[in-house]
Amino acid sequence: MEINPIGIIHTPFTSKEECPIQPLYAQEATGNVEVFPEFAPGLKDIGTFSHIYLLYALDRAGKIELQRATFLDDAPHGIYASRHPCRPNSIGMSIVTLVHIQEATLAVQGIDVLDETPLLDIKPYIPKFDCFPEASEGWTANKTWQGKPSGRE
Amino acid sequence: MEINPIGIIHTPFTSKEECPIQPLYAQEATGNVEVFPEFAPGLKDIGTFSHIYLLYALDRAGKIELQRATFLDDAPHGIYASRHPCRPNSIGMSIVTLVHIQEATLAVQGIDVLDETPLLDIKPYIPKFDCFPEASEGWTANKTWQGKPSGRE
Repeated sequence: MEINPIGIIHTPFTSKEECPIQPLYAQEATGNVEVFPEFAPGLKDIGTFSHIYLLYALDRAGKIELQRATFLDDAPHGIYASRHPCRPNSIGMSIVTLVHIQEATLAVQGIDVLDETPLLDIKPYIPKFDCFPEASEGWTANKTWQGKPSGRE
Repeated sequence: MEINPIGIIHTPFTSKEECPIQPLYAQEATGNVEVFPEFAPGLKDIGTFSHIYLLYALDRAGKIELQRATFLDDAPHGIYASRHPCRPNSIGMSIVTLVHIQEATLAVQGIDVLDETPLLDIKPYIPKFDCFPEASEGWTANKTWQGKPSGRE
């Protein structure tokens, strides 16, 4: 199955070392999601949503590792029990806040991806479909990110 | 970018007409997510989570339409303001409840995809990263699915 970018995500993060691992740790980070002109009609009504999913290519992930340590702890976990980028089919997913739209560019907040990341899809975040406060935290309970985002010191 | 299945999703839904549009409308529907043996080590610790994301190929979606009516109303919306399957890059996403694991097969509840759907990725649902009760419902506010799932009458 062939997948092609529909746009590019622009962020302040040019290296993995400075890139937060989740929007939760990037709440002040802003970015611009540029949708290519041929897909711009698909953005109609997106401005009615406050939050959106971005699906993107993890184009600078390292080699696939089915079990590995994560950014939350040093114990190895299965890649499917983790959001780590080194996964088969390099699709990343982030939920960001939609701040502003200008033509086919979406200004977003809480962005945790590398600059120039290829955008694959946008889906609206709809709380009645997507919010499960009762869900377990699994092995991530009480773990916090060991990294330190730049630009927020 | 080439994407290849890592498994197959087995569900009771063999036609689009009977398939619910979202897990919210499929809460009693159960399915089996079969992960191919070569990816099975990636499932380590997944059983610590109650909810998981499934990413899958929308392999029986119709032709791409950047603006179209949806299952929630008859007005046309941009495909990126919608979860409709007829989208560029045919990647679908569902959040399901993880009920049971046997070897490399995950029994799940609240499944809204067609039988024999190619599985692309599994990610843990982690409420601190993924739950935004304050998010707007956008144009979907007060809309309900116009379809009727089979098997639940």
